[in-house]
Amino acid sequence: MSKNFNDLLSKVSQCEKKKLSVACAQDKAVLEAVKAAKEREIADSILVGDEAKIRELGAALGMNMDEYEIINVEDTVEASLKAVSLVHDGKADMYMKGLLDTKTFLKSVLDKEVGLRTGKPLSHVCVFEIPGFDRLLFLTDVAFMPYPTLEDKVNIINYTVEVAKACGVDCPKVAPLAAVEVVNPKMPVTVEAAELTKMNEEGQITGCIVDGPLSLDIALYKEAAEEKGALDRKVAGDADILLFPDIHAGNLVYKAIVHMVDVKNGNILTGTKAPVILTSRSDSCEAKVNSIALAAVVAEEMKKAN
Amino acid sequence: MSKNFNDLLSKVSQCEKKKLSVACAQDKAVLEAVKAAKEREIADSILVGDEAKIRELGAALGMNMDEYEIINVEDTVEASLKAVSLVHDGKADMYMKGLLDTKTFLKSVLDKEVGLRTGKPLSHVCVFEIPGFDRLLFLTDVAFMPYPTLEDKVNIINYTVEVAKACGVDCPKVAPLAAVEVVNPKMPVTVEAAELTKMNEEGQITGCIVDGPLSLDIALYKEAAEEKGALDRKVAGDADILLFPDIHAGNLVYKAIVHMVDVKNGNILTGTKAPVILTSRSDSCEAKVNSIALAAVVAEEMKKAN
Repeated sequence: MSKNFNDLLSKVSQCEKKKLSVACAQDKAVLEAVKAAKEREIADSILVGDEAKIRELGAALGMNMDEYEIINVEDTVEASLKAVSLVHDGKADMYMKGLLDTKTFLKSVLDKEVGLRTGKPLSHVCVFEIPGFDRLLFLTDVAFMPYPTLEDKVNIINYTVEVAKACGVDCPKVAPLAAVEVVNPKMPVTVEAAELTKMNEEGQITGCIVDGPLSLDIALYKEAAEEKGALDRKVAGDADILLFPDIHAGNLVYKAIVHMVDVKNGNILTGTKAPVILTSRSDSCEAKVNSIALAAVVAEEMKKAN
Repeated sequence: MSKNFNDLLSKVSQCEKKKLSVACAQDKAVLEAVKAAKEREIADSILVGDEAKIRELGAALGMNMDEYEIINVEDTVEASLKAVSLVHDGKADMYMKGLLDTKTFLKSVLDKEVGLRTGKPLSHVCVFEIPGFDRLLFLTDVAFMPYPTLEDKVNIINYTVEVAKACGVDCPKVAPLAAVEVVNPKMPVTVEAAELTKMNEEGQITGCIVDGPLSLDIALYKEAAEEKGALDRKVAGDADILLFPDIHAGNLVYKAIVHMVDVKNGNILTGTKAPVILTSRSDSCEAKVNSIALAAVVAEEMKKAN
C-alpha cells in the first residue's frame, strides 16, 4: 500500500515506464513538471504543440530536448486532438493539459473519434498526503461534477476505488460524508449515503466497504468515533475515500486543507479510458509531478485489467 | 479589533462583569469551563440544576461553591426553563447548556413565555483563531441550520455581522462561499451569493461588505486572489465572515480545520435575544471558555444597542 507519495513514486519505478502525452506543451510550469517526471523516471513525454515555443521554454529550463518527442501542431484544437489520439491509439499511456483552456481540453478528452470517453460521466479525485495519517486520502468530487446524483455517486465510488486500488489499497473504506452521522429524512444527502451503504452491503457496489452518512471527524479520527459512540461503524476513523455531498462541500474542504495544512497532493480526472491530468495553474510543480505519478499507477492498473 | 482570543479576553475585562445562567449545571466539563470563566474574570455564573450533584462535582474540581449562586431544580425541563428565565428577566446576561439533551435545551431557548426567541430563525457562528491570520474568522452556519434559504442567509449575515462587531470588527467583510468565484446559473448557490452581494450594494444588507460567490482561496488568501486575477474583488483575501452554502459544506470544513489545524475556537447560537452557548461534549475546556467570552462581548454589544 502506498502510504504516501514517496511510496507511490517507488511503486511507479516498479511499473513499466509510462508515456505522457501533453496537449499544447508550450507552458513553463507544465514543462517543469514534465522535466521532473523524466528525471525521476516517472514518465517520458510526447510534447504536442508549438514546437518553437516548446524548444525555447525547454532550453530555458535546461531540458535536453533530445530526450522528448515533439510533435509540431500550432493550432490549439488540433494539438489537443493529436495529443489525445496518441493515448487513444496506445502510443502514450496518459494525457495531460498544457497551455489551453479547460473547455477545449475536455472537448478533446470527450472526442468521439480520438478521445478517451467511456460513456460514463467524468469525475475527479484528489489524493492527499496529510501529516498524521498513515495512508493516502482520496477526496472526491472536489473539482468537477457539481451535483452528483445517486447514480453518479455509484460511478464516483467505482472510479475512486479503482484509483485507490492502483495505489495499493486492497479494499478501500469509503465514507459518504455529511454534517451528521445519522440518516435524517430532511437531509437528502444522508438518505443517499445510506442508500450507497445498502448497495454496498447487497453487492451492487463491490471491492470496497461503504459506510455513510458519516461526519468528517468520525470518518477520519478514531478518538472522535469513540467519543461519539460510533466505534462500531464499519468506517470509523479509517476512511480511505471521502465522498463529498456536492462540489461546494468538496471544494471548500479541499481548499481549506491545501491552504491551511502542510499537505502533498496529486489529482486526476476519472471516468476516462486512460488517466487524464488536469492540473490548475495554482498547483505546485510537486503537485503536478504527484499527479503524473498517480496517473502512471492508474495506467498500470488499467493495463492489467485489460 | 480582537485579532485573537487573547484580545477578546482583554475586551471582556473592559466590559461590565457578565452573568452566565447554566441549565442543568451538574456536568464536570461545563463546571470546569464555568470555573475557568470565573477565575479569568470573564463571567460569574448562576448554576441551575441538581444542587447536590453540582456541589459534589464542584468540590471535586476544587471550586469554591460560595462564589456561585446555585438554584436547585432537579427536573431537567424545569431547570432549563428556570435557567433561561433568568436571562429573559435580565438577572443573567447569557445562557449555557449543561447536562441535558440539545432538543430540551433549544425548547427552553424558544419558549414563548420565558425564552429568548426573536421571531427569527436560530443560527450559529463558529469563531476561529487560525495561525497565520491577523484576525478572527467567523464561520456560519456550520452546525445548526441545514439548508438556509436566501432570506435565512440575510438573517445569518445580519446575526454574524453583529457578533463580528461585538468583537471589534467595524465593517466586516462577508464572503458567501462556493466552489467557484463566478455566477453559474447551474449552481444556485452562486446565484444566491450574487443576490446577497446586490442586496448589500443596494442597502438592504448594511454594516458590512458582501462579495460573493467566492472560492475559499480567493476569500482568504491575497496570493490566490492575485494569481486568479481577482484582486479587484471587494473581498479578496481578507474575508472576516465565511458564509457557507449549507450545513454539509460548513460542517465538513469546520471539522477539517478543527482536527487538522492548530486552531482556537469558540461559538454561540445566533438569532436569540441574548447570547446562548451550546457547546458540544467534544469541545475542549478552552473552547467552552472562549465561547463564554464571545457570549460576553456579544451581550455587552446587545446591551449598548438597547
